[in-house]
Amino acid sequence: MTPAETGQDARVARTRADVARAALQVLTREGCEALTHAHVAEIAGYSKTTLYTHWPSRLELIMMALDALGEMPHLEPTGELRADLIAELTVFRRAVDELRLDQVLAVMAQWASADEMAQLRDRINTDGQAPLRAMLTRAIGGGARLEAAVSMLTGVVACPSLMFGTAPSDAVIEAAVDLVLAGLGH
Amino acid sequence: MTPAETGQDARVARTRADVARAALQVLTREGCEALTHAHVAEIAGYSKTTLYTHWPSRLELIMMALDALGEMPHLEPTGELRADLIAELTVFRRAVDELRLDQVLAVMAQWASADEMAQLRDRINTDGQAPLRAMLTRAIGGGARLEAAVSMLTGVVACPSLMFGTAPSDAVIEAAVDLVLAGLGH
Repeated sequence: MTPAETGQDARVARTRADVARAALQVLTREGCEALTHAHVAEIAGYSKTTLYTHWPSRLELIMMALDALGEMPHLEPTGELRADLIAELTVFRRAVDELRLDQVLAVMAQWASADEMAQLRDRINTDGQAPLRAMLTRAIGGGARLEAAVSMLTGVVACPSLMFGTAPSDAVIEAAVDLVLAGLGH
Repeated sequence: MTPAETGQDARVARTRADVARAALQVLTREGCEALTHAHVAEIAGYSKTTLYTHWPSRLELIMMALDALGEMPHLEPTGELRADLIAELTVFRRAVDELRLDQVLAVMAQWASADEMAQLRDRINTDGQAPLRAMLTRAIGGGARLEAAVSMLTGVVACPSLMFGTAPSDAVIEAAVDLVLAGLGH
């Protein structure tokens, strides 16, 4: 590879990172409607032509924004199931607020008729639920009870956010974990 | 009121009903992106000018689509808590599929920065959860445990749908209800 090609690659990577960050900012602060080539170009400081050249469709812009989300925050489990579940849901509640995961979830659900978006959505959500699922798998094993518990504890945070724009209190998160653990006979 | 005025009112009401139905059809079959004045006008069989005159903004079109949703289906409770909760979640699962409530929820979450949409969303979701909440209130009373149980049982159906485009099996719905009831000591 010539130095010129390396420089070119680095420029493309920088452009991509800048545009992805701008797209995510527009998505979470202004919503999906505002995520247009013109507006993202303006925020990122690039020309509309550059954006249309690299990412011709709105779907590509939206998927790039989701790529910029990065890793969901999680805590290292201590092995004490009740405390770990409460800590994980508390981190999830903060991420919903700070990363506007309600908007992210809504936009992924809306565009999921596109195969590549459905795949990206499944991956993001699977990764996001992985620590909760791992904790519960150690307690429950598998089967319908595991699926129910994973969805229920996700729902304690996700449902108020998506349905009413609110977050559960500490007491509600603790009550949810205690109900599930008592239901499991722990 | 003159006969001419009555005729005028009836015409406006009919136009509104036609356009609302078309808007809901576009929203649930093609998604929020497709819900534009031009496309809804085409589906409803009215001119774009008529639509812009009565409903100048896209938000108004979307809110009209949501108005056309009508009542959520619910079953008459029998008083047997376990059977009633399972039946209610089963009806909810069918409604999510048939009415594409995942798309409806996603679009409401996305537009909720508009006050009138946030109010409509809260009303639709409060009404939708009311029978589940009533059943659980009789069993739990109130407080954090009630809020946790309402969100958790809603989440068993809503989370798989919004996060993965899937529906919970009968076994998962039953496991969720049994976990909550066992957790409550029932």
